[in-house]
Amino acid sequence: MADLLKTVDDQALAERFAATRSLTEALATPLSAEDQTVQSMPDVSPTKWHRAHTTWFFETFLLVPQRPTYQPFHPAYGYLFNSYYEEIGARFPRPHRGQLSRPGIHEIADYRSHVDGAMTALLEEPVDGAVASLIELGIQHEQQHQELLLMDIKHVLSRNPLLPSYADITMPCPTAEGRTTWTEYEEGIHQIGHDGQGFGFDNESPRHPVYLGAFAVADQPVTCGEWLAFIDDDGYHRPELWLSDGWATVQSEGWEHPLYWSRVDDIWQEFTLGGPIMVNPAQPVVHLSYYEAEAFARWAGGRLPTEAEWEVAARDRGLDGHLLDREVLHPAPSVLSAGSASLVGDVWQWTSSAYSPYPGFEAAAGAVGEYNGKFMVNQYVLRGGSAVTPPGHIRATYRNFFPPSARWAFSGLRMARNP
Amino acid sequence: MADLLKTVDDQALAERFAATRSLTEALATPLSAEDQTVQSMPDVSPTKWHRAHTTWFFETFLLVPQRPTYQPFHPAYGYLFNSYYEEIGARFPRPHRGQLSRPGIHEIADYRSHVDGAMTALLEEPVDGAVASLIELGIQHEQQHQELLLMDIKHVLSRNPLLPSYADITMPCPTAEGRTTWTEYEEGIHQIGHDGQGFGFDNESPRHPVYLGAFAVADQPVTCGEWLAFIDDDGYHRPELWLSDGWATVQSEGWEHPLYWSRVDDIWQEFTLGGPIMVNPAQPVVHLSYYEAEAFARWAGGRLPTEAEWEVAARDRGLDGHLLDREVLHPAPSVLSAGSASLVGDVWQWTSSAYSPYPGFEAAAGAVGEYNGKFMVNQYVLRGGSAVTPPGHIRATYRNFFPPSARWAFSGLRMARNP
Amino acid sequence: MADLLKTVDDQALAERFAATRSLTEALATPLSAEDQTVQSMPDVSPTKWHRAHTTWFFETFLLVPQRPTYQPFHPAYGYLFNSYYEEIGARFPRPHRGQLSRPGIHEIADYRSHVDGAMTALLEEPVDGAVASLIELGIQHEQQHQELLLMDIKHVLSRNPLLPSYADITMPCPTAEGRTTWTEYEEGIHQIGHDGQGFGFDNESPRHPVYLGAFAVADQPVTCGEWLAFIDDDGYHRPELWLSDGWATVQSEGWEHPLYWSRVDDIWQEFTLGGPIMVNPAQPVVHLSYYEAEAFARWAGGRLPTEAEWEVAARDRGLDGHLLDREVLHPAPSVLSAGSASLVGDVWQWTSSAYSPYPGFEAAAGAVGEYNGKFMVNQYVLRGGSAVTPPGHIRATYRNFFPPSARWAFSGLRMARNP
Amino acid sequence: MADLLKTVDDQALAERFAATRSLTEALATPLSAEDQTVQSMPDVSPTKWHRAHTTWFFETFLLVPQRPTYQPFHPAYGYLFNSYYEEIGARFPRPHRGQLSRPGIHEIADYRSHVDGAMTALLEEPVDGAVASLIELGIQHEQQHQELLLMDIKHVLSRNPLLPSYADITMPCPTAEGRTTWTEYEEGIHQIGHDGQGFGFDNESPRHPVYLGAFAVADQPVTCGEWLAFIDDDGYHRPELWLSDGWATVQSEGWEHPLYWSRVDDIWQEFTLGGPIMVNPAQPVVHLSYYEAEAFARWAGGRLPTEAEWEVAARDRGLDGHLLDREVLHPAPSVLSAGSASLVGDVWQWTSSAYSPYPGFEAAAGAVGEYNGKFMVNQYVLRGGSAVTPPGHIRATYRNFFPPSARWAFSGLRMARNP
Repeated sequence: MADLLKTVDDQALAERFAATRSLTEALATPLSAEDQTVQSMPDVSPTKWHRAHTTWFFETFLLVPQRPTYQPFHPAYGYLFNSYYEEIGARFPRPHRGQLSRPGIHEIADYRSHVDGAMTALLEEPVDGAVASLIELGIQHEQQHQELLLMDIKHVLSRNPLLPSYADITMPCPTAEGRTTWTEYEEGIHQIGHDGQGFGFDNESPRHPVYLGAFAVADQPVTCGEWLAFIDDDGYHRPELWLSDGWATVQSEGWEHPLYWSRVDDIWQEFTLGGPIMVNPAQPVVHLSYYEAEAFARWAGGRLPTEAEWEVAARDRGLDGHLLDREVLHPAPSVLSAGSASLVGDVWQWTSSAYSPYPGFEAAAGAVGEYNGKFMVNQYVLRGGSAVTPPGHIRATYRNFFPPSARWAFSGLRMARNP
Repeated sequence: MADLLKTVDDQALAERFAATRSLTEALATPLSAEDQTVQSMPDVSPTKWHRAHTTWFFETFLLVPQRPTYQPFHPAYGYLFNSYYEEIGARFPRPHRGQLSRPGIHEIADYRSHVDGAMTALLEEPVDGAVASLIELGIQHEQQHQELLLMDIKHVLSRNPLLPSYADITMPCPTAEGRTTWTEYEEGIHQIGHDGQGFGFDNESPRHPVYLGAFAVADQPVTCGEWLAFIDDDGYHRPELWLSDGWATVQSEGWEHPLYWSRVDDIWQEFTLGGPIMVNPAQPVVHLSYYEAEAFARWAGGRLPTEAEWEVAARDRGLDGHLLDREVLHPAPSVLSAGSASLVGDVWQWTSSAYSPYPGFEAAAGAVGEYNGKFMVNQYVLRGGSAVTPPGHIRATYRNFFPPSARWAFSGLRMARNP
Repeated sequence: MADLLKTVDDQALAERFAATRSLTEALATPLSAEDQTVQSMPDVSPTKWHRAHTTWFFETFLLVPQRPTYQPFHPAYGYLFNSYYEEIGARFPRPHRGQLSRPGIHEIADYRSHVDGAMTALLEEPVDGAVASLIELGIQHEQQHQELLLMDIKHVLSRNPLLPSYADITMPCPTAEGRTTWTEYEEGIHQIGHDGQGFGFDNESPRHPVYLGAFAVADQPVTCGEWLAFIDDDGYHRPELWLSDGWATVQSEGWEHPLYWSRVDDIWQEFTLGGPIMVNPAQPVVHLSYYEAEAFARWAGGRLPTEAEWEVAARDRGLDGHLLDREVLHPAPSVLSAGSASLVGDVWQWTSSAYSPYPGFEAAAGAVGEYNGKFMVNQYVLRGGSAVTPPGHIRATYRNFFPPSARWAFSGLRMARNP
Repeated sequence: MADLLKTVDDQALAERFAATRSLTEALATPLSAEDQTVQSMPDVSPTKWHRAHTTWFFETFLLVPQRPTYQPFHPAYGYLFNSYYEEIGARFPRPHRGQLSRPGIHEIADYRSHVDGAMTALLEEPVDGAVASLIELGIQHEQQHQELLLMDIKHVLSRNPLLPSYADITMPCPTAEGRTTWTEYEEGIHQIGHDGQGFGFDNESPRHPVYLGAFAVADQPVTCGEWLAFIDDDGYHRPELWLSDGWATVQSEGWEHPLYWSRVDDIWQEFTLGGPIMVNPAQPVVHLSYYEAEAFARWAGGRLPTEAEWEVAARDRGLDGHLLDREVLHPAPSVLSAGSASLVGDVWQWTSSAYSPYPGFEAAAGAVGEYNGKFMVNQYVLRGGSAVTPPGHIRATYRNFFPPSARWAFSGLRMARNP
C-alpha cells in the first residue's frame, strides 16, 4: 500500500484531508434531517450514513491502529457504519440503513468533529509512508462517497411527488446539438493501468500491455437528442437490439426511457438535482444502464469501447470536463471538437469490459484489501467521471464499475467503432 | 352518520377537538425529525405521516365540503396523505411512506396549524348533527392514530441496535404473579353491539341478538410468567398446538418468543417504549400474533373467547384498566380479582372471531364508508384497549382488528373455557 | 371417532371401499402418464400423487396399526405421500410434488393393488366400530380427492396452449336464462351441524343452536348471464364494490373475469374439462374467488348467506343437483323453481362465514385429528357440492373451505338478502 | 453463415444428421414418460421438450424456408418449442415448460419422425453451402441439447428422494490421487479463436491476436480430494476467499459443498447419473459454480486461467479426454502427465473470462444470429467439454458459458498461475 503514494507532503495531506472533510459537510448542508435519513432503495444510502461511514473509515483504519490512547466515539458505530468489510466484523444490513433514525444528524456532526480532531492531531506529527497512504486512501474514499451522496440524494428526492430540488442550478444555455466527430487509433500493443505517479486504486494496477486492433472513439458523448431518435425509432421495443438479459429487464421494469425522464403533455422532462427540467437535446444523456448503452450502440451501428480503448484514447487529452467544481450538478452540452478535448467529465461512460482483475492484480493485505477486488464479478467498467465527481478524483486509468442494470449513477456512453 | 352521535354539545366538541390535536403533538414531541421520518416495515407509518394524515382527514371531510372558501394547504397533500380512501382518488403507496423526506416536520406543524385554525373557526359557529358527527369521527380517528403512532415508533426504535427509548417510563413494581380466577356466564340470547348512546364506529352496529352457550372468562389476561411456561414446555416447537398457517409462520419467521423479546445471557428481556427491561412474570404478555394466542390457549386447555362472549363479560365491569393516561406505555401487572374488575386496558385481547359484518351492517355512504367495512376479511377481532389507547377511546363494544400474523400492536390474550 | 359412524354394515363398507377405489382409477384412466405427473401450481397435486396419497391413508391409518404383519409397500412412500400430517413425520414439500417422476403411474397402480388386497383381507373379517369409522373416513377422504383430482387436472390442462380435453362432455342444451326466485325464512333459534346420523366430518359437529334473523335465499345460483352484466357494469374496475384485500388482488392479478374465461374475437369462452366452450348465460357461473362472489353480491344489492342460513335453507330440500354422476363435469343450467328444489350440486357456494370451529368442537385424538381443525383460519366456508363432487359425498351440513383468493375449485355463489 | 463450413460432403452430412438424431432418442430411451415431463427448476427443460425443440429447429430453419410444400407438423409447436428466438415470434414461458403434459412422448416421437423424413428427403438432393451450414448448425445444436438433456435429467432425478439412476454406470476403479503437474507458456502475442477449418460457432470468431504474459496451467483438473481439503480448511466459511457476490450466494443458498454432494454418516457421497456413489478423491470435482472455482483458486494460491490462456495451452494437446462416448457419464480419475495430455473432457473448466464478443464479432443475420451473441453478459466462459459432451462436439476454441452461480452443468476447474 505504501507504494501507492510515492512521496507525501504531510502539510498538503493535512490540507487535503481538511478540505475533503469540509466538502462532505458542505454537500450535506442543503439537506434537512429528514432528507438525510431516507433510503429510497437498497443501493442508496442515507446522507447521514455517508457522513458517518467516511468518518468510521478514518477511525477504524487510522486512529484505532495508530493512536493507542484513542477511544472510539461510540461502541456501536463500528457495527452501524461498516459498509462491507468482512474482516472488521459484523455490520448492520445495508438494505435497512433507512430504518435507523439514530444517531441523528447532530450526533453524526459530533462524531465527525471528534474524529477530525484526532486526525488533525495525528497529522500534526510526521507520518510514515504507509500511514500517509492510508490517509490518502481515506480521502479518496470520502471523495467517492461525495459522489455517492449526490447520486443517492437525487434518487431519494426523485421518489417524492413534490419533486424537490437539492439546489438551485443554472444549466448552460441549450445549444444546437453538435455533430459527432471521431478520432482514430492504430493497432498495436499499448500499456494500460496506473503508472505509479500519484494516487491510484489497487484495481488500476499493475500497468500491463494489451494488444488492440485499430479503433475509433467519438469525441463527444451521446446526447439526449440522439437518445430521442433511438426512442422514436422504437428502440425500447425491438428485442433484436438488446442483450437477452437486457431485454428481460426492459420488459420486467417497463423501461421506456432513461431513469428520471418522464413525458408530461408530450414534452420530455428529466429530474435533476435542481428539480425537473426540459430534456435538452444538446446535453449528454445520463442515467442509463449498461443494457441501454449497449443496445443504443448496436442501433447506432457502432459499439461501446473496451476500457483499454477508452484509456488509450483518453490519456493524452487532459481532464477538463464538467466535474463537481463546475457546480451544474448535471451533464452539460459539449463544445468539444475532434481529437482535441478531454474524454473526462459530465457522464461516466459504460465500456464493453466486464470488471475483472488486471493480470497480476493483488489486493492489499488486510481489511483495506476488500476495497475493490471482491467486486470483480457481475459488473461493467465505466470510465471518465461525471458532473458530480469531485475534481482531483478522476484520471484516465480510473475504473468505476456498476452492475449492468444500474441506472442511478451519472452514467452515459461514448461510441466506438472499427475504422 | 348523523345518528352516530345523538346529541352534540358544540362547546365540548371544540374542546375535545383541541385536546385531541394537542395530544398528538405532545406524543410526537420526544421524537426527532429523523425519528419521525422512518418507516420500519410496510405496516408502519412514519410519525410525521400520522400527524399529516389525521390533519388531512379534517381538511378533506370537513373543511373542503363545509367551507367553500377554504383553500387546501398544499395541492399535493391530498395525494400524499390519503391512507386508503379509493373514492378520494389516487394515493401514494403505503409501503413507500418512509421514502418521503418532504414535507418535513416543520411543514407538517404548519399544516396542522393551518387546519386547526380553520377548524376552530368552523367550530365557533353552530354545526349541524351530520357535521358534528364527522368531527367526532375525525377525533376518534385521530385517537386511533395516536395509538398507531406509539405502536409504530416502538417498532421503528426496536429495529435500531442502539435500542433507544421513546420516553423514560416507570414500570409498576414487579409483583408476585397472581392466580387466574374465572367468571361464569349462563347460556342464552344476548344483545351485542353498540346501543346508540355516545359514539360508536359503524362496525359496532347494529346491535343484535346472539345465542351463546354457557362460558367462563378469565378475570386476568395471560401473563409473561404463563408465557414462559409455554416456552419452557416447547410450545414454539410442537406443531400439534398450532393452526396450520400458524405453524408455517412460526417456521418461516423463526418465532421463538413474542415480538420484542430476546434472551441475553439467559435472561429474558423485552423492548419497551422505555427501552429494554427484564421480562416481568407478573405483567400481561404482549405483542402476540393470533396464531400464538390461539396455540397458547390450546396448550393451556382452554380457548380464546368469541367476541360476543368477551363483550357480554366486559360490559358490566367498567373501563378502569391501564390506558394511555397511566403513562406507563406498557401493560402493567394486574391486581384485579374475580368478577369485579374491568376487562379493559393493558393489552388488546385476541378473540376467536373473524372480523365480519354484524347482521344488517351497512357502511356509511361516500368515502367515510370506507372506514371499517372494507377490511372485513382475513382479520381477527381484538377487544379491550391497551396501555397506549387514549382514555375515552375504548368501550365494551369496540372492535379492533388485525391479520392473524400481526404482532406489533399491543396484543395479548385472555382465556375462555366451557364451564 | 367411533361415534361418527353409529352402525356399520361390514359388507356394505367393503363394497363402498371397492367402489370408491375403483372410481379413482376410472377418473385417472383418460389421463396419460405425462398428464398424471404435472403440478401446475403449488395448490395443485399431480393425479398420480392423489392416487398414491389416498392409498397411503389406508396403509398408514388402517393397515399398519391393525395388521401387525403388514409390510409397507415401500419405505419411502410414507415420506412422499403424507400430505400434511405432522404427527406422522416429515413429508416431501407440497410445492414440489410435480418434481417427482418416480414412482410412475404403473408403480402407483401396483401400490394401490397391494393396499387394496390387504384392505380386502382386513374387511373380510369383522371390524370393530373404531376401525370401521376409520375406513369410512378413508373412503370419504378418497372421495374428496376424487373431486380434487378433477379440479387439479382441469387446472393443469388449462395451462396448456393446446387446451386439451379431459373427456368428451355433452353439455345440456343452452336454455333461456331463468329469473331468480327467493325463499324466505323466519327469525329464530335454529340447530345447525351434524346430527350424528350417518357419516359426518368432525368439523360439522357438534350440532348447536344459533340465532338467525329473518332472511331470504335465492332458489338458483348466480348465472353466467348475471356475471356478464356485472362485467359490463365495470364490476372489476370499481373499488367501492370490493373488500380491500379483494381489490388489491384484482389489481395484482389483473382479474377481469372468472378463472378459465377468455374473450376471443369478442366472444366469451370458458375452459372446461371438455375443452373450451362458449359461455352459456343460463349456466351457473363457476371458478370464482370469495372476493368476486362478495363483490358481486354487493353490486347486486344483496349479500352472501351465512353458512347457518345456507344450512337452514338447504336441509329440507333434498340433494338432487348435478353431481359427478351426471357426468357433465360442469355446472349445468338450472331448472329449479322457488322453494322446491335442492341447493346442492353444480357449484360450491361461497358463504360469508369464516371457517371457524363450532362451539365445543374437538378434533379427534392423534394424527387423524389434523384432518380439519388445523385449517380453521384464513378460509371461508363453501356449501353445496359441485358437478365434480361424488354422489353420496354431500349433505346439508357439509363444510368445504378455501382461502378467499382461491378460484380453481368449482366455486360459485347463491344470493341471500334481508326480507 | 455459409463460410462457417467451407466444404460439405452431403453424404457425410446426411449420415451425421441421422446419427445425431438417433443418439438423442437413444439418450431418452431409459426415461419413462413421467421422467421426460418433469422440470425441476426454471433452468432445466424436460427431456421431451429437448426432443421436440431440436426437431423444431430443423423444421423452422430448414424445412419451412427450403421446402415450399412442407406442412408444419402442428400449428402450435412453433409457440411451444421455440426456446428464445425473438424474431420467430412469441413462445411459451421457459419456467413453465414442466406444466405441459401434452404433447406426450409418443406425439413427440411422431413429430421427430415426421421431420426426420422431410429432412432425409431434403438431404437426398444436393444442398448449397448455406443450407448445409444450417444443417450443420442444427446438428451441433442438437449435440448441445444432448448434453443439456443429461445435465437436466440428472437434476430432475436428484430432486427425488428415491435417488433413481438414469443408467447403470461403471466408474473406473478409484486410484490414488495424483500430484498436480504444470506446463509453462511464454509471454507474447497469440492468435485465438476459430481458424475457419471445420465447424465453429459464431462466438469463436474472428480469430484475433491477444497479448499474454507468461503463465502456467495445471495438467490435471482439480480433484475431489483437493476439494475435501478446501472444505476441511473451512473454505465455505471464510469470506476473505470469496468474491462479494459469491459470499452472498454461499450464505443465501447455504452452500457447504458442491452440488449433488451430501454427507451421510460422516461419509461424503455424490449423486451421479448412476445414482449415489462415494466421493472418490481421485476424480475431478464437478458441479461447481464460478464462485466456488474462483474461491478455491485463491485458497490454493493460484488463479483461474483466462480463456485465452486455456486455449493456448489446449490447442496442441489433442481431444482425448473422457467424453460421452466413454459412457461413464461422470468425470473419471485422470492419468495424464505433464504437458502431454489433453485439456479436454471430464469437466468443463471455468475460466476467469467474462463471456464477451471477440473483437470484430458479428452475429449472423436473422433469427439464427440470436444463437450466441445475445447472451454475452453476466456469464463466464468454460472450456473443455465434459463426460457428457458428445464426441466431435468439442474443440480447443469452443466457448461454453454459464452464469457464475450455475452449478448443474458438469463444471469443474483447472488451475493457472504466474510462473
